[in-house]
Amino acid sequence: MAKAKESGAVLSAVLIADQEGSFITRELDLAELQFGGLPGDRHFGVTSRADVRQPMYPRGTEIMNRRQISIVSEEECEQIAAALGIEKVLPQWLGANMAVRGFEELTHLPAGSRILFSSGAGLICEGENEPCVFPGKVIAEHSGNPKLAAKFVKAAWKRRGIVASVECPGLVQPGETIRILFPPAT
Amino acid sequence: MAKAKESGAVLSAVLIADQEGSFITRELDLAELQFGGLPGDRHFGVTSRADVRQPMYPRGTEIMNRRQISIVSEEECEQIAAALGIEKVLPQWLGANMAVRGFEELTHLPAGSRILFSSGAGLICEGENEPCVFPGKVIAEHSGNPKLAAKFVKAAWKRRGIVASVECPGLVQPGETIRILFPPAT
Repeated sequence: MAKAKESGAVLSAVLIADQEGSFITRELDLAELQFGGLPGDRHFGVTSRADVRQPMYPRGTEIMNRRQISIVSEEECEQIAAALGIEKVLPQWLGANMAVRGFEELTHLPAGSRILFSSGAGLICEGENEPCVFPGKVIAEHSGNPKLAAKFVKAAWKRRGIVASVECPGLVQPGETIRILFPPAT
Repeated sequence: MAKAKESGAVLSAVLIADQEGSFITRELDLAELQFGGLPGDRHFGVTSRADVRQPMYPRGTEIMNRRQISIVSEEECEQIAAALGIEKVLPQWLGANMAVRGFEELTHLPAGSRILFSSGAGLICEGENEPCVFPGKVIAEHSGNPKLAAKFVKAAWKRRGIVASVECPGLVQPGETIRILFPPAT
């Protein structure tokens, strides 16, 4: 097996979207990743239904869920805030399930990379999370500037983080050091 | 969503490893992909056990199975045969579950790419399949030249094809045209 590149970072937050009708997440002190993601989260499930993000399948088709966990970097959130001219953009507002610090270019992490936790749990990066319009509305509301809603997608382009799926279940805790392993190594 | 690059090719063979104690595959006239792969194949399963290919997990840990289906290109098999100085290398000898023709650089297909079939079934490319020593022994046996066994890994480097998992179940049939979709599009 070819040697994998490795890079360290810190898991700064673990968050869950468990409020009816909302994608906004709230922080957890500790969480257990299971096959399918974070139990109780709106994206939890080993399989999911094809939607606008998988136009190659008829809407509603049962497919494997590759969008179980969404992850942002704190540094990229700061860049989005700067691009919008506001003080901050919280991971919660983006519906992120995890935030990391110390790995700036998270959005460019290649699909197939692994994110490994001290419990032994592991995620597989499924690719870039392309920005949609909804977080823009939340940011506009929090900042009191309605014009920001339309600016979010451009400001967040290539900074929106990644989506991942659980390869190996286990506990995850804010503050822990994580390992990021680049492919190849399937 | 960013526009995905697309490329066509033909599914030239569908194969299964269903003989006790052997990784060698045999051709099928028709097969049904299910979540987990090809039922009856030695790599079938939504989850599998970590082995030498996943050294970041303790051996035997239950993990998601990203090596459900292995795929080679006919053109790359011809290149391996040329590098070994023999007439042919059959997909069967490599334990491949699928062979494709008309997509030469299959091994370089990015992780996260999709392979789509006319039934609506779809695979996700999980990455390059790095060559191991076992097919070399089969090739040596078939060619009557024991020296080839040791040469296989080098000859097959970056030509060994990919591993994939089933994203959407459905039928697959040799001879059909397939679509190959590049990321992004998670």
